[in-house]
Amino acid sequence: MGDLDIRTAVAEDIPAIVGMLADDPLGAQREAPDDLAPYLGALERISADPNQHLVVAVRGGRLVGTLQLTVIPGLSRRGATRSIIEGVRIHADERGSGLGTLFIEWAIDESRRQGCQLVQLTSDASRIDAHRFYERLGFTASHVGFKLEI
Amino acid sequence: MGDLDIRTAVAEDIPAIVGMLADDPLGAQREAPDDLAPYLGALERISADPNQHLVVAVRGGRLVGTLQLTVIPGLSRRGATRSIIEGVRIHADERGSGLGTLFIEWAIDESRRQGCQLVQLTSDASRIDAHRFYERLGFTASHVGFKLEI
Repeated sequence: MGDLDIRTAVAEDIPAIVGMLADDPLGAQREAPDDLAPYLGALERISADPNQHLVVAVRGGRLVGTLQLTVIPGLSRRGATRSIIEGVRIHADERGSGLGTLFIEWAIDESRRQGCQLVQLTSDASRIDAHRFYERLGFTASHVGFKLEI
Repeated sequence: MGDLDIRTAVAEDIPAIVGMLADDPLGAQREAPDDLAPYLGALERISADPNQHLVVAVRGGRLVGTLQLTVIPGLSRRGATRSIIEGVRIHADERGSGLGTLFIEWAIDESRRQGCQLVQLTSDASRIDAHRFYERLGFTASHVGFKLEI
C-alpha cells in the first residue's frame, strides 16, 4: 500500500481533488471538473484564511483522499473553539481500506492541536454508510443539519 | 417595540450574551455565566478572524438576540463559499415577537453580501420548534449533524 502522507493541498492537486468531489452520487450533479477556474479561485480564498485547512492524503505519489477542516472560535460552551470537517472524499480505489478512518482520526488529532474542544460535521441524510462510519469513530448524531441555497 | 439594531458584539456585551446562552434548556448545562474570562478570551479570538461575525440585536438599548455567522470558502459545489450560523439566541422576553425571523433573514442577507452561495446550520434534534422555524424560512433539513467532544 505504501506510506500515507497527509499534507496541505496546492494548485497542482486541484484536478485530482475535483475528480474525487465529482466521483460521488451527490457530487456528480454539483461539480464541473471540465472547468477548474472556480476551484482554483476557491483554493486562493481557502489558502488566504489561516483557519482553513484543505488537505490531501497521498499514497505512492497518488492523491487518495481530501477533506477540509475549518477552525471556528466561538462563545458557547464556555468559549469553546470547534472544528468543522467538510468535503470528505476517499478515492474509489481506496474505499474499504481503512483510509477513511485514518483520515478522520488525523482530522480529530489536528483539531486537538488547533485547540478545539469539539469536532462537528454534517452528512447528507442519504449517506447511511457514512453515518455508521462516523458513529463507529465516536461521533453522536445529535443534530439536524439545515441548508439553504441563496 | 422600538427600532432594531444589529451590530458586531463588543466586550461590554459579553455578560448579556452569556446570559442568553445560559437561559436555554441545553445552554443551562453548558455555560458558566459566573466566570466570564473564557468568554472574553473567545471574543478576542473571534474578533481577530475576519470570517467570524458575532453580532447582537439591540432594541431600546437592550440586547435581545445574538448569533454568530462564519464565512467558509470551499472547493465543493464549484468553489462555493458557505456560511454557518451558530449560537442563535433570542431573549426570553422577545420570543414569538418575530425577532427570530428578522434576525435569521439578516444573517441570510449578510451571507449574500459576503459572497456565500449556501447558508447552513445545525439544530439539536430535541429543538422541534426551531426545526419548524428554519423550515418556514426556506431551509431544508437534508443532513444529519454529528458532534464529537475532544
